[in-house]
Amino acid sequence: MSEKQKMDHSRRQLLKGGAALTLAGIGGAATLPVMAGTQGKVQTKFDEIVDIIVIGSGFAGMSAALKARESGDSVMVIDKMPVFGGNSTINGGAMAVAGSPLQKKEGIEDSVDTMVADMLEAGRGMNDVEMLKLVCNGTAESCEWLTEHGVKWKPFVQHFGGHSLPRVLQTVESSGAGIIRPLIKAAKKAGIDMRNQTKLESFVKNDEGRVIGIKVRDGFYFPRNKTGKVRLFGASKGVIMATGGFGRDIEYRQMQQPKLTKELDSTNHAGATSEALKQMMLIGANPIHLDQIQLGPWASPDEKGFGTASQFNTIATYPSGIVVDSRTGERFFNELADRKARADAIMTRRDEQGNPVYPIGFTNAEGAKKAQTLAWGLKYKVIQQAETLDELAQLYGIPAKALKEQVSRWNKAVSAGKDREFGRPMQKAMKLDQGPWYGVRMWPKVHYCMGGVRVNTHSQVLHLITDKPIEGLFAAGEATGGIHGASRLGACAVAEGVVTGRNAGQMCTQSKRVELAQA
Amino acid sequence: MSEKQKMDHSRRQLLKGGAALTLAGIGGAATLPVMAGTQGKVQTKFDEIVDIIVIGSGFAGMSAALKARESGDSVMVIDKMPVFGGNSTINGGAMAVAGSPLQKKEGIEDSVDTMVADMLEAGRGMNDVEMLKLVCNGTAESCEWLTEHGVKWKPFVQHFGGHSLPRVLQTVESSGAGIIRPLIKAAKKAGIDMRNQTKLESFVKNDEGRVIGIKVRDGFYFPRNKTGKVRLFGASKGVIMATGGFGRDIEYRQMQQPKLTKELDSTNHAGATSEALKQMMLIGANPIHLDQIQLGPWASPDEKGFGTASQFNTIATYPSGIVVDSRTGERFFNELADRKARADAIMTRRDEQGNPVYPIGFTNAEGAKKAQTLAWGLKYKVIQQAETLDELAQLYGIPAKALKEQVSRWNKAVSAGKDREFGRPMQKAMKLDQGPWYGVRMWPKVHYCMGGVRVNTHSQVLHLITDKPIEGLFAAGEATGGIHGASRLGACAVAEGVVTGRNAGQMCTQSKRVELAQA
Repeated sequence: MSEKQKMDHSRRQLLKGGAALTLAGIGGAATLPVMAGTQGKVQTKFDEIVDIIVIGSGFAGMSAALKARESGDSVMVIDKMPVFGGNSTINGGAMAVAGSPLQKKEGIEDSVDTMVADMLEAGRGMNDVEMLKLVCNGTAESCEWLTEHGVKWKPFVQHFGGHSLPRVLQTVESSGAGIIRPLIKAAKKAGIDMRNQTKLESFVKNDEGRVIGIKVRDGFYFPRNKTGKVRLFGASKGVIMATGGFGRDIEYRQMQQPKLTKELDSTNHAGATSEALKQMMLIGANPIHLDQIQLGPWASPDEKGFGTASQFNTIATYPSGIVVDSRTGERFFNELADRKARADAIMTRRDEQGNPVYPIGFTNAEGAKKAQTLAWGLKYKVIQQAETLDELAQLYGIPAKALKEQVSRWNKAVSAGKDREFGRPMQKAMKLDQGPWYGVRMWPKVHYCMGGVRVNTHSQVLHLITDKPIEGLFAAGEATGGIHGASRLGACAVAEGVVTGRNAGQMCTQSKRVELAQA
Repeated sequence: MSEKQKMDHSRRQLLKGGAALTLAGIGGAATLPVMAGTQGKVQTKFDEIVDIIVIGSGFAGMSAALKARESGDSVMVIDKMPVFGGNSTINGGAMAVAGSPLQKKEGIEDSVDTMVADMLEAGRGMNDVEMLKLVCNGTAESCEWLTEHGVKWKPFVQHFGGHSLPRVLQTVESSGAGIIRPLIKAAKKAGIDMRNQTKLESFVKNDEGRVIGIKVRDGFYFPRNKTGKVRLFGASKGVIMATGGFGRDIEYRQMQQPKLTKELDSTNHAGATSEALKQMMLIGANPIHLDQIQLGPWASPDEKGFGTASQFNTIATYPSGIVVDSRTGERFFNELADRKARADAIMTRRDEQGNPVYPIGFTNAEGAKKAQTLAWGLKYKVIQQAETLDELAQLYGIPAKALKEQVSRWNKAVSAGKDREFGRPMQKAMKLDQGPWYGVRMWPKVHYCMGGVRVNTHSQVLHLITDKPIEGLFAAGEATGGIHGASRLGACAVAEGVVTGRNAGQMCTQSKRVELAQA
């Protein structure tokens, strides 16, 4: 453009829309450092400018940042917490993959369609099928991409609840840290600008309504709201929201689900709150399924948070043991059902006053051999060891005779390859024929938000009214809504985070760059 | 105020907040007729100004308008449709009342607490208990208020599904029109300004973020979006949103519930769409339970919309008959369960390809005697008459022997006063001992949105972030979310609409009046 053309262009812009600078967010009375042009044209001046800003540093955020950086764009990752990784570092590190080499090695025939069907069934048909297909379709490639970045997997696949067959890979650490650490290392090596204690306050949009940056609090001390210095960061290609769920935001989750009181614990880290979601909604993001909040059915009331039992029950008790009502010694649900079915079943166990009667899950040494948290659970007495079933019954106040009869019935079902009582899939079922036994008291905890903002398959956040993209705004992972419907299957959060994160990163790099002004 | 005082006031206002005029809504590029003050102060000039604007003219809207007008405020009611009343005029006119004189006359002991408990159970504990109490607590008084306005009730109470006892009053017309017509008549008499074909486009707020009016399309032709003349209406005390649900907004309801495709009919009028809800969300209203969408379990696939069967089944088949699977002739659910339980049960009846196998509901002449739509249903062949059970079986392809055995089992259960199979409450259960029989094919239709915006007990719309009122904005009836949780009980929409409408009207009159400028 010549100087003359530029001036004409500027005049046209001015005639078209006026000079409004829009800083979305509550109140709207923010004062911004602006530069008045010769004819009243106003332009935001940013403290720092990059191509792409990623908010959140969990699976979705780190995957988005790396993928975007691979294309040569400058990328900044911000996280409000003092440590990176969010929930992802305390996650179990299990990833559902449709058609992995490990499945082939074990002779398990899987497909993208099968995984989609499993997730649709768990989601009670409420799933966003296009996004669901995108996720399942991307699992094999994304898993390989993680491996290339140094993630190490256990050499076998597992059968998690609600999946019709074994398809779950898990990091050797049995933790999401086994994914997050290599990704952060790769990000630093690639020159991605990683900023902790930096919190999104609101979005900055230009005259056309495109998101061109964010207002942040730099040096933020969670959860003290007004801490940190207010600064403006520009994103000439776009902002990617990888801001997770709100499972630890007790006030907000109770607005949607009044029963999820503060008495009900959560597996989430303290930063799993709702501010970022709300900022998106204030600029027109379309919220989907906000009241679909998942309870993890493998948690124990005998420890705080995710703890040792969640992993133990996922890897040992559920696939290789059984769960009984402590009053009757009898099973009462399919231990490989989806999470919602299992959590709902467990929470029916109450006394006449409505207080929980914690069911007992148990397996034996053979079933527990792959569970790395066994020693810790025993140390903190969350898991208890018993040499005989009589001793186990005594430990938990279960009628011993009934318990032994239940174990005998279970062993017959394993021999028959069929669970006539509760329809549990028996491909990897194991007889419970000798001790030592390991027991856990069980009660669900708030674990995952199926709800979030509506996105398209380009990971663009869609506007509530137009259902068209809010330009410059992308979202991935738990921050989005609809992929899982009413209930997410286990190991599908890692899958979703990595696949949609990489997708968002790629799509954002393809955005048209807008010129921004430095302060 | 003297001229001097006014000037000082104006100067203070200016120093306080700057000169921004905010017109919320998509794009935000609207041009408004504004008046530039001597020092750059900008003020919206409204085409018309009243104290209170009510949007929507159903139960909630008319109740709000009348209650507000009673206090002497000037009130305008707008409705986007050519006729007033919305869904309320095609509703069944049934109102749940806790502790009505009719209940006392029939010796039925009821209480506000019992009604709250029933609604909480149906709502699966997801209800906003404070709002629920407000509704139940207001039913007796609101019912009396309706009677004073000329509403005529049948001289008996009915037992609707999910209620633990008979507490439902119904207009003699068996239609909500029996409520809406007297209220509209009273509104016109009281000098309320009623405007049809007038559609909300967006809200107008002042510097402090208070809603002070609305932008409308005057002379709007539903559903043609850009029709009508854009005008600005000021509301110096507030705007009351009585804008109902979005059951007929197929695109939007499918975003939340993908299974509610266009193939699934709705009982709602064509205007039950989502624009008003979305405008509230755009200025920060907090959406609750948007994916909780109720299916009416009493509808028939053999007619469009609410039709004749919905009323017939509510008044006759469900309380005084039974519903059977056409393939087995057997009952398969509690016919007095809440709507969600019944709709879910019916929709399990499918063939191997997943296509509906419509269950058959039936009663006899005695059971049908109170149902005013019987003749119309027979005329349109939605209801079919049979002289004998054999003939009924033949009409619907039910195995005759099995059907007769089922009827015999049912009659024994009535004698015993106990339904051991499905736990149906038997207070008003009736033996099915002689024809003629009346049968209906049944399949649910989209009926009611439990979701909507979060309000407090002053009927103020609460902001997503602060959880404090958006000043000047009130909401009532189906537009609000949370009162009914996961499933609304029958006859509780009239109760909710009238009680919360009156509450909103009263609360809005108590708002501080702001000075607005006429164009």
